[in-house]
Amino acid sequence: MLKLDKTSKTPIYLQIYQQLKDQIISGQLRPEERLKATRTLSEEYHLSRNTVLNAYQQLESEGFVRSIVGSGFYVEDLPEYQGNPEKEVSIPSVEKRSEDPVYDFRYGSIEPNVYRTRAFRKALKDAVEELERRDSLQDTDPRGTFGLREAISEHLREVRGVEASPDQIIITSGHHYSVSLLKRIIPNEIRTLAIEDPGHRDSRTIFREAGFQIVPIPLDDNGIRTEHILSLRHSLIYVTPSHQFPMGMILPIGRRLQLLKWAKVSDSYIIEDDYDSELRYREQPVDALFSLDRNERVIYLGSFSKSLSPDLRVSYIVLPRSLNSILSSEDLPASSSSVLIQLALEKYLRSGEYRKRIARMRNILRKKHALIVDRLNGHYGDLLTVFGIGGGTHFVLRLPVKADQKQIVSFFRERDVGVYPTDDYFITKQGSDPLIMIGYSGIPSDTLNEYMDRFIQTLDELIKRSD
Amino acid sequence: MLKLDKTSKTPIYLQIYQQLKDQIISGQLRPEERLKATRTLSEEYHLSRNTVLNAYQQLESEGFVRSIVGSGFYVEDLPEYQGNPEKEVSIPSVEKRSEDPVYDFRYGSIEPNVYRTRAFRKALKDAVEELERRDSLQDTDPRGTFGLREAISEHLREVRGVEASPDQIIITSGHHYSVSLLKRIIPNEIRTLAIEDPGHRDSRTIFREAGFQIVPIPLDDNGIRTEHILSLRHSLIYVTPSHQFPMGMILPIGRRLQLLKWAKVSDSYIIEDDYDSELRYREQPVDALFSLDRNERVIYLGSFSKSLSPDLRVSYIVLPRSLNSILSSEDLPASSSSVLIQLALEKYLRSGEYRKRIARMRNILRKKHALIVDRLNGHYGDLLTVFGIGGGTHFVLRLPVKADQKQIVSFFRERDVGVYPTDDYFITKQGSDPLIMIGYSGIPSDTLNEYMDRFIQTLDELIKRSD
Repeated sequence: MLKLDKTSKTPIYLQIYQQLKDQIISGQLRPEERLKATRTLSEEYHLSRNTVLNAYQQLESEGFVRSIVGSGFYVEDLPEYQGNPEKEVSIPSVEKRSEDPVYDFRYGSIEPNVYRTRAFRKALKDAVEELERRDSLQDTDPRGTFGLREAISEHLREVRGVEASPDQIIITSGHHYSVSLLKRIIPNEIRTLAIEDPGHRDSRTIFREAGFQIVPIPLDDNGIRTEHILSLRHSLIYVTPSHQFPMGMILPIGRRLQLLKWAKVSDSYIIEDDYDSELRYREQPVDALFSLDRNERVIYLGSFSKSLSPDLRVSYIVLPRSLNSILSSEDLPASSSSVLIQLALEKYLRSGEYRKRIARMRNILRKKHALIVDRLNGHYGDLLTVFGIGGGTHFVLRLPVKADQKQIVSFFRERDVGVYPTDDYFITKQGSDPLIMIGYSGIPSDTLNEYMDRFIQTLDELIKRSD
Repeated sequence: MLKLDKTSKTPIYLQIYQQLKDQIISGQLRPEERLKATRTLSEEYHLSRNTVLNAYQQLESEGFVRSIVGSGFYVEDLPEYQGNPEKEVSIPSVEKRSEDPVYDFRYGSIEPNVYRTRAFRKALKDAVEELERRDSLQDTDPRGTFGLREAISEHLREVRGVEASPDQIIITSGHHYSVSLLKRIIPNEIRTLAIEDPGHRDSRTIFREAGFQIVPIPLDDNGIRTEHILSLRHSLIYVTPSHQFPMGMILPIGRRLQLLKWAKVSDSYIIEDDYDSELRYREQPVDALFSLDRNERVIYLGSFSKSLSPDLRVSYIVLPRSLNSILSSEDLPASSSSVLIQLALEKYLRSGEYRKRIARMRNILRKKHALIVDRLNGHYGDLLTVFGIGGGTHFVLRLPVKADQKQIVSFFRERDVGVYPTDDYFITKQGSDPLIMIGYSGIPSDTLNEYMDRFIQTLDELIKRSD
């Protein structure tokens, strides 16, 4: 018996299909049983034969029945159906992201908002119009659009002293993707990653998951202690020479040269993560390691996350020619970055507005930086240590308290202040120091004093408690 | 001796810095040599002392010199500088992507162009305006924006019978990223991937690189031969049940149920790649395996690449609750998908225009499909086998020639016709069959006959040659 509702929005053939399917699943129609002939069923319900045939064919295409020419449709012998076909629809309650604290020193937030600039909005509009003109849409080159790679090549030459043709550049959808791709690009015999300790956690994890041996290299006040890598051969080293992450020092030229020499003699490669060097404001940005390299041993990682917006999802890899020449496009997965965003970014870079934005951001960050340091030094003097001078968007602070980072972070959080642990960045010395990270790039300048009031008030309270 | 040009656009302090740096690198200034006192140099060149001090501090911050209080600046003892500091600037000639053939049956191209629709352009515009209102920009939830996950959740319920809350959904920047993420999400003890042979190449590669054992499972005319997996335990299986990639069959319900049962009893998981099931046009799209699963063993992969545009870079993972509950946001890297695109897509889905587009695309694809099959059957009859019926955007063809795929593809390419090899999809039987893949979604309907003329003319020529 079928219950067909001719007033329903669901076509009749789908109603037949659904009801017969349920009867097969529930066992009401038995294996090898013959369905009613299409003619019989159509007469019984006053339907066209085609309607019935459509339903039967849908059942057949999904394997519920099979047809035997000249004989009809037979129910298949199906494996036991697990559980109740009337599925309980109990969707777990939807949780939105937990409330962010009011005074949030989150690392990675950015202001001023680039979407508020006429130049960027125009670049987006022009990009949409360019896409509109295409007859069909398809993947780009796996390395990203040629135009954006060319614009980045020109930008790097001017600003970072990096000489690289568009062919050496791969656009990605973020730092994680860049590092993940490197696994495919570096020679197979390299199975060891030396990395700054403390350093970038996600990069470490990606290589560890890929089966690399991880060798933590300690820092001193000048950055990574290069004497610790001299015995390594056929290795990768992951460094942030322009602005150590997270501690903030600039690697001195002597150690830079030592790294380059080591890479040459030990047949190794250097991954230079240049994540925020454009935002150096005390001195000129330091030239990239890539630009000093004469032996094609440096892989350069860049990003627009800190300078434009983290939500664009555009980063890039610059390969030395030695690696680039062995790479064919077929070795790469489809490009991971939206073409619309790539086109818009290319136009924005070429308009010259990006350089102006960087200059403006440097000024804003310099002032924020000075304000925070003044407030902290004024109130705490030598009690509190500030790591990270002269650039970027964050500090690491050593607080004058005896408490572990989790306790510190939740103490602040309970008072609506967002500060962040650094433990995850450490490999060997987790949990030993009352170090926290604060970011200041996302805090509007005119509210920063208020944020610092709240921070100092909270820290005072914490210091009093831990006495 | 310094050569300072006061008419240059380069600030004087940078000129001093650059020239002293070159002198240190070239050895003209020796290790431990003392730089001229700032007062001396400033008087000598009629400069302010601050200008000189700026230059010296930049040198110091990069480690070329060190300052000794009350004494001055001393050149550091640097490791030997490799090679010639006057770097040759020889950028390799820029290669654009090689010319695409005129008659290109490329898989993955899409028309009609969604950027030409008013609804999508409006969604983009509204998304820009929404971003404009934000005071600062920051990363979203690593799973993607809540709104898009909610819109996808509603869409899947309606169209694919998939019941999943936004919490179970992760937005990614494409299929490659989705599969790469899965390695982080599935339980550690799972180290085996069973996969359709032929099947999706990139997925296989990702798991192989992660150290998984790959078990190829053969197909027959109905799809993957599920009897071959019964002995596997604690495994993953990667399947395309709604439309086998690349061969195009629908997996019958009997085998679907067998897969689900196997996953339960063997403590395994199923990756259901549902890449183009919305574009099924002969019958209704078949319900997803995820919607049949009662035991939380199916991971669903979806994408907008085939239905909207490959250049948007938006795909998604739907996790079963069993896996979702052990996943915290901190285990995931930053979201890889542009927030602008996510917001626009959410608005487009909610407008109802996406459903209309799918319905329209199905009609267009049905007609293109019929035209191609008619032309091929009319001309070649049983000589040529067409794999893939009833849905999607591509066919696999077995050509009646004795030639390997490379030869076939370049023969066509020389005559300006783009057809594509299938060898990469095969694990065990590479190179044995004259199989090629053609895509038809990107070819405008009014030119398809002309494309087929050219295809048939070329194939006729090839057949004649290989006789």
